[in-house]
Amino acid sequence: MIERIAILGTGLLGTSIGLALRAAGFSGTITGWNRGADGAQTALSMGAVDALAADPIEVAAGADVTVLAVPIYATLDLMEQLTLHLGGDHLITDVGSTKAKITQVGMAHFNQMSCASFLPGHPMAGKERGGASLADANLFRGAVWLFTDAPGCVRSKRALELIKEWRELVEAMGSKTLDLDAKRHDELVGWVSHLPQFVSTALSALLEEEVGDAPELKDVGGRALREMTRLGASPYSMWRDIAHTNTEAVQEALHALEQRLAHLRENLRTPELRDEFEQANRFRRDQ
Amino acid sequence: MIERIAILGTGLLGTSIGLALRAAGFSGTITGWNRGADGAQTALSMGAVDALAADPIEVAAGADVTVLAVPIYATLDLMEQLTLHLGGDHLITDVGSTKAKITQVGMAHFNQMSCASFLPGHPMAGKERGGASLADANLFRGAVWLFTDAPGCVRSKRALELIKEWRELVEAMGSKTLDLDAKRHDELVGWVSHLPQFVSTALSALLEEEVGDAPELKDVGGRALREMTRLGASPYSMWRDIAHTNTEAVQEALHALEQRLAHLRENLRTPELRDEFEQANRFRRDQ
Repeated sequence: MIERIAILGTGLLGTSIGLALRAAGFSGTITGWNRGADGAQTALSMGAVDALAADPIEVAAGADVTVLAVPIYATLDLMEQLTLHLGGDHLITDVGSTKAKITQVGMAHFNQMSCASFLPGHPMAGKERGGASLADANLFRGAVWLFTDAPGCVRSKRALELIKEWRELVEAMGSKTLDLDAKRHDELVGWVSHLPQFVSTALSALLEEEVGDAPELKDVGGRALREMTRLGASPYSMWRDIAHTNTEAVQEALHALEQRLAHLRENLRTPELRDEFEQANRFRRDQ
Repeated sequence: MIERIAILGTGLLGTSIGLALRAAGFSGTITGWNRGADGAQTALSMGAVDALAADPIEVAAGADVTVLAVPIYATLDLMEQLTLHLGGDHLITDVGSTKAKITQVGMAHFNQMSCASFLPGHPMAGKERGGASLADANLFRGAVWLFTDAPGCVRSKRALELIKEWRELVEAMGSKTLDLDAKRHDELVGWVSHLPQFVSTALSALLEEEVGDAPELKDVGGRALREMTRLGASPYSMWRDIAHTNTEAVQEALHALEQRLAHLRENLRTPELRDEFEQANRFRRDQ
């Protein structure tokens, strides 16, 4: 039933979705739009999309399902534009890393009588660097693809069918789907995704200042250093929107970690250090 | 010239050294001692040592080179015991993660007329879990093996030859050797090795408390979470000694990171966040 998919934003995620759809056997058309011409051309040459168009609204209007794969504020902008042009038999979904704001706007502008349907989504997959050229048909394999659909949606029979089929396509791309409340989603990713990112950024920035010019550094730093600072390469352009749309949860998590580090620092030579290691060991055992 | 090597401590590092020496073609005898009988038997059954003995001093006295591969305070204990039993043609070396204290004791008890020689060493290799059963002949391949020899050593010609040969064996195990001043070593590893460990411990312990019982956690956490908390599995038994012997450097590093996190938290919605990401990006580019 899904024959035409529009991918708005052919960065790492959008292009990977195109490639993964093809790898999963999707045989309909995939049309792409990207703000920058380079990313669009790369996605086209990789075979992630069949065709490109200059106007995102036009691309979406010609599709059954539109995937928004742009940063969060750009997603919100496109949602606002699309609401005027798409009817009740159209499905829009997204890949944004925070979901409360997007889900709220989705309920305000879509999911009502004769409106298009909006299914808020978030694949837990990515790389520390973005861009179409790093796209990978296997990016979503083994990952979890979260949906934060809200109660109270009014949807046409066709829209419900499209949602069912899109979820099947997500599974065909190798992901496990999971449904979460949007607010709970943002709290949870604040702890397990956003906190690790901001810690890695702060650690990398601090090390650049303290030992960035130490000639021995390249030799001395081992796997621990590489892993703990890998996310230091993540781009501000993506994380700015996350910081703006999940500020409270991230602030809470950062503040809690600051206190935890201070506690550890004050107890480097007391038995409290043992408790802290044992609690950390428990977390790893439980994963 | 090195014909008999004693490995005191057949945990992850000691057992891996035995295996790596064999893989590198060392054809002399390797005798092992371990405080716990299980670890010793595992090392023997893996072929990391040819024989075991119950007394560490006896094992060392029968060797040309003794490798101390136990935690830092146990290393200091063994050094004190060995000083009475080994003569000027013997070489002792270690693998401890902090070097100022060990190097200082090495100069006080060894490296003098008719004393054994002590060469402080630190392979930048390991795993988040210890024990002989995880030992690996390739553990040191591609790693850097640091030495923090102090000036002013008095050594016999034979001891100098043993040092030269041990360094060659280290390279044959696949490591690159690098010489550093012991104080500089401890400062530098405070930033690039100990800080990442304690951050991972604090982060893991915090997450255990905050979301350890969230049923969705196993699904939601991605690669970022796994990487940033991998070191959370590290054992207190090893890190206690590091915390005790590099306290000041670790405290300074932790305090600096606390301030950095607070700064980031206060600037989640200001342009300062961009500066922080760009500085972090620079660190990763330079690595």
